Formats: sequence, C-alpha cells, structure tokens
Amino acid sequence: STTGNPAVAWAAGKPLSVEEVEVAPPKAQEVRVKIVASGICRTDDHVLGGYFPNIEFPVIPGHEGAGIVESVGEGVTSVKPGDKVIPLCLPQCGECCFCLNPDSNYCINFSESQNLMPDKTSRFTCKGKQIHHFLWTSTFAEYTVMPEYAVAKIDAAAPLDKVCLLGCGFPTGYGAAINTAKVKPGSTCAVFGLGGVGLSVVMGCKAAGASRIIAIDINKDKFAKAKELGATDCVNPKDFTKPIHEVLMEMTGLGVDYSFEAIGHKDTLVRDLLAHLQKGVSHRCLCVMVGELASGSVVSFDPMLLLCGRTWRGSVLGGWKTRDSIPKLVSSYLEKKLNPDLLITHTLPIAEVNKGFELLRAGKSIRSVLLF
Amino acid sequence: STTGNPAVAWAAGKPLSVEEVEVAPPKAQEVRVKIVASGICRTDDHVLGGYFPNIEFPVIPGHEGAGIVESVGEGVTSVKPGDKVIPLCLPQCGECCFCLNPDSNYCINFSESQNLMPDKTSRFTCKGKQIHHFLWTSTFAEYTVMPEYAVAKIDAAAPLDKVCLLGCGFPTGYGAAINTAKVKPGSTCAVFGLGGVGLSVVMGCKAAGASRIIAIDINKDKFAKAKELGATDCVNPKDFTKPIHEVLMEMTGLGVDYSFEAIGHKDTLVRDLLAHLQKGVSHRCLCVMVGELASGSVVSFDPMLLLCGRTWRGSVLGGWKTRDSIPKLVSSYLEKKLNPDLLITHTLPIAEVNKGFELLRAGKSIRSVLLF
Repeated sequence: STTGNPAVAWAAGKPLSVEEVEVAPPKAQEVRVKIVASGICRTDDHVLGGYFPNIEFPVIPGHEGAGIVESVGEGVTSVKPGDKVIPLCLPQCGECCFCLNPDSNYCINFSESQNLMPDKTSRFTCKGKQIHHFLWTSTFAEYTVMPEYAVAKIDAAAPLDKVCLLGCGFPTGYGAAINTAKVKPGSTCAVFGLGGVGLSVVMGCKAAGASRIIAIDINKDKFAKAKELGATDCVNPKDFTKPIHEVLMEMTGLGVDYSFEAIGHKDTLVRDLLAHLQKGVSHRCLCVMVGELASGSVVSFDPMLLLCGRTWRGSVLGGWKTRDSIPKLVSSYLEKKLNPDLLITHTLPIAEVNKGFELLRAGKSIRSVLLF
Repeated sequence: STTGNPAVAWAAGKPLSVEEVEVAPPKAQEVRVKIVASGICRTDDHVLGGYFPNIEFPVIPGHEGAGIVESVGEGVTSVKPGDKVIPLCLPQCGECCFCLNPDSNYCINFSESQNLMPDKTSRFTCKGKQIHHFLWTSTFAEYTVMPEYAVAKIDAAAPLDKVCLLGCGFPTGYGAAINTAKVKPGSTCAVFGLGGVGLSVVMGCKAAGASRIIAIDINKDKFAKAKELGATDCVNPKDFTKPIHEVLMEMTGLGVDYSFEAIGHKDTLVRDLLAHLQKGVSHRCLCVMVGELASGSVVSFDPMLLLCGRTWRGSVLGGWKTRDSIPKLVSSYLEKKLNPDLLITHTLPIAEVNKGFELLRAGKSIRSVLLF
C-alpha cells in the first residue's frame, strides 16, 4: 500500500480531518491516481451534511479532481503510469445499453454513491478502519483508486490545477446549455443560481449565441462575475415583492426560451417552470448535478404547465459521455476555446480544506481548488 | 341569420338538447361553415361535466369536425363558399411569435375556452339567448362561425365523415409520437390509455418504426383494436397487484424509451414517469389534449426522476402547426398513408348525440361520428 494524507469525513456534520490513510494497490481493471488538484463542489458539502442516506461514513469526498496515474492493475490498457487523467464521477463503460445509446450518458455502472469499488470492497484504510469511496473518485485523497472506465486520459500539457474543474462543475453547466437544451442563437435564457454550475451555464448560453442571458441569485456579489461571463441582466429576487416568474415575464414580455435550474431547491424548480408561462415549447432544462437534491424530495405542480407544450429535462454531467468528451474539453481548454479558470476564486492547500467549505457556505467563493 | 339545429349544452351535468339556433353571418375575417360530420371526443364530455371553470354555459360543444364553407366575411381570402374545410380548435394566425417559431404550434390566439369570438360577441342565438362558442369550433352545430385563421382548407376529394377525425384526436396522438417524441426505429414505447388519442399514438409509434409498443388500459375490450393498429403487447393493470411501472420494468428489463400519457389522470402521469426507471434520457411525452386535466390539478413527484436524465414534455394537438399541417394529413389520408377510419366505431345522426356520449362513458366506443 501507498500512504497518503486525504481529507476524511468521519461522520455527518463534522469537519473534515486530514489523516494518514493506506491506499491499497489497484486490482485488475483498476487505476491508482495521484491527485494533484481538486475543486470543492456543493455536492461535497451535501455529503458532509449527511444529506445522502445511501452514502456511508467514514468517507473521502471529492469528485472534481485531476492527477497523474501512479500504477495500474492487471488488464488496464487505456492508461499507464505518468499519464495525466481526470477521474470520472459519471463513468462510461462503453458497453451498456446507455453507453451504446447516442442520446444517453447515463452509464449503467453509475449510482449516486459508488461508496465501494465494484467488488464491494474499499482501497482505503485508516487506523485499521475501512474508509469509503465517494463516486469512485474521492479526489480529496492524495492517492485514490478507480475502475479503468471511470478515468479519462487527458493531454499531457494540461495544467491540472485548472482542468480539475472539467471533472464536474464546468461540463455540468456548460453541457446543460450546449447538449441538453441545445440553446439556439438569438434566444433568451434564464439561469437560476450562480454557483460554479450556474456560471458555467451562463458560459454555455453565451457560446451558443443566446442574445439575452438573465442571471438570477439572491447573493448580489455573484453578479459581477456573471456579467464578466456573459450575463446580460442580473436579477436579485430579494429586490422584488412579486414572484420571480412575474418579474421575468415583465422583463421578457413572453417568458424565456430556456430556463436552467442550478440551485437544486424544489421550490425553485416550480418557480422556474412558471417563468415559461405563455412561451410555447421552450425548453426547460434542469442542469442540477446528481444528488444536489436530497433523495425523497417532492415537487408539486399543475401539469397544465407542461401539457401546453413545454419540456422539462434533467441532465447528468451536462449530457457528456465522459470518457469520450472530457479529454476533448481539455483540448478545447488548451486551445483557449473554454475558460473555466474564471470560476476559480481561491486556491488552498489540502490542509485548509475546511476553510474552503466555509468560503463556499458563506457565498464567498465560486470554486476553491485544493492542492496536494 | 341562418338557422341550424345544433346540440346545445344549457348547463353543466345536463344532457345536450338539439335546438333551433340562429347563426349570425360571419363578420370581417370570419368564416361560416356548414358542418357535415363531427367526432365526439372526451374533452367534449369534460365540457358537459362542467370541468372547465372558464367555459360558460349555454354552449355548443364539438371541436373535431369537417364541413363546407357556406359564406365568408369581408377580407377573407384563403377560403371561399363551397370549399371543404376542417375547423381548427388550435388556430394558427401565422403572425405571432409562436407561429413564427418553428418549434412551437401554440398560437398566441389560443386559449382553453374560446367561448366568444375574438370581438367578445357570439354568433349563436336561441330563444333570444346568446349561446357560447367552444374553442371557436362548436362543431355540434349545423352552422358555425370561426376566425379565418382557425379554419384549414382541405382537398375537395376528402370524405368529411372520415377526415373530421383529423381535426383533433388522430393528429393529437399521432403527432405526439412523430413530432413531440420523435420516436426512433427499434425503440420500445408504452401508451397509457387506449381512447382515440392513445390508439392514434399507437399508430404513430408503429409508423415511426418502434419495435415494441405496449398498450395499457383497464378496459380489456380496447386490446383487439390496439393490436390491429400496431400494439405488440397489451397490459391491464387490473391483472396485477404490483404497480404498473414494476410490471413494465419486468417486461422490458430497463424500462421503455418513450411513454405516452393519453388518459389525463394525474396519478397516471407519475406512474408513467416511474416506468422510465433506469432508462437514460428516454423521452417522456404527454399527448393529453388541451384541457383533459381540469385546471388546478397538482402532480407531485421526486425530481430525481427527471434529474437523472429524463425528459418530460407536453404537446398540444400533436405539435402540428394546424393550418399548415392538417391539409397535408388529409392528403396523406387520401393517399392511404394514414387510416384514422379504424378509430370510428359508431356513426350517429346529430339527434342521437346523447347516445354517443353514453357509448363513450361506457367505454363502448372509440370514436362516434355525428352526421348532420
């Protein structure tokens, strides 16, 4: 075993603690990766809060990382030690009916926990105790193990402290606009929630040629960044007594063409759908990351909102088939066609992981990147 | 004024009565049509039941008719007396932002009542009382008046007692499969509810090349017709104690690719969505006709069902831009590419309109066609 110093969550509601952890070698068809950098995403905070009943503690969170292959198990052919890689929280086995379906990226091997390796064991041990994986990525670990089909080889020139954001937040939001909604040039978009995902939606809408991008958040400190990334209007629901969908109707006359939910709060889902009143078959995209809503939430709405011609769609990781697409996104980044760097507000050593979460909860960061 | 003998609904919950009604001449941009045949649709029964709070009585229902132009008002250029036409319960003005949007058929002039002409008056009078229009079609009237943009000229060779079904039920279901879901060859479809709309969905799925079409109804008497039209499996939820989505999962292994809701009952909407468990980005189509659900219904569901990559879509009149498309559907019918005749189970004189509704409520008819 190799040892590393990851951030471990011992129990729900407790701060992370950096521990010495033994990391077993990769078994057949597995890869051990030395993580160089990892973004902090809201989903990790939901793990810490214990919002996912199917995720067991102790666990090493983190799912937006980049690193270098350290060793590979028997039978691994697609990567070798020294390759730069991005761990895939949504795998792509390439063989299941979903991977073979050109319209789906929802690999059958994906679940909402991936709390143990496919053989139902863990590669992490600390003080004699088994520590759980998270999404098979556990990128808050210096060394982490994952199935071969859950890792994507990327260009050797990629700066890992930047492209780690291509592991989750950026493609989730950008792809929701480009792939899931297929935003048309000249259209009007509304983006609810201006965290890392929501701001990536703004970038996707701009890249798709939207002529009006309305960015909505109750934290006005997000607006400068939203405008920098392409928002044409910023709206704070707290500035109005009337419901936000009425505000949007007044701003747009007939509602918006596309609406994106990047908050993951059920009340917003319905409010957001209402913003489409009177607007034909406009797309209604949910780009919330997997698990942003705790399981068991319930949304209630009048089905006439859909029956009169609307569409409501969810997307996982922006609809990208991950192993195929993430290396291409890295190449586009190196060609300066994408700029997720603009989302990085803080860079911290892994020892300051709890400070990273405090910044997130206080609404003061977009993405903090942890470095090993 | 011309006089006619339409079926008038004087109050909610009462049988229709055939009355002598005066029908005022068409005003500018209006057309008066002599109706030859009209289908009886479930939506008409919902009108009679008083389920639409915004539809006022007395009213002449009917919205699935075909007839001949009797006279035209000033400025009408697209039709002339003697032309065969289908009245359009969903108009197409051709000028609003929705008509100009290639992805929408939801003309801004459409509402769920169209209880009076656009100038807020009625053309119908009976015993000195104003009688309301319904959807501007009121095809249970021998003579009826509608705006020019709510009438489609069709081929002079069309048999009106058959193509009346192209005014609503057939295109609503067929288009839900072809236009809204865009069913792919080789896919698996589930159709909930085997009335005129649901059976038209079955025909649309078959035309699109679906390899498996599962037809679901609690009335097993519908199954022979469903199989004749293309269903490969018929399922009666009453034959199972487990929920219908579990039955579908067992039948299909991974759920269906497309699911169609042609019942309009909110519990079914959710059950139907559940039938997609584990099945990637499969489409979720609602092909319920406008108003099949009473306003104010509420559907509750776990948003994770959508977030993991599904799509939920509503469609009005099968997504067809009506004035453009319905004449083409009539042409396809004349070329024997479509066969809505198979839905017609009864033909009755207008005097037996109440018998037609009794057959519908008893589940004994698919479409009854009323003749004047």
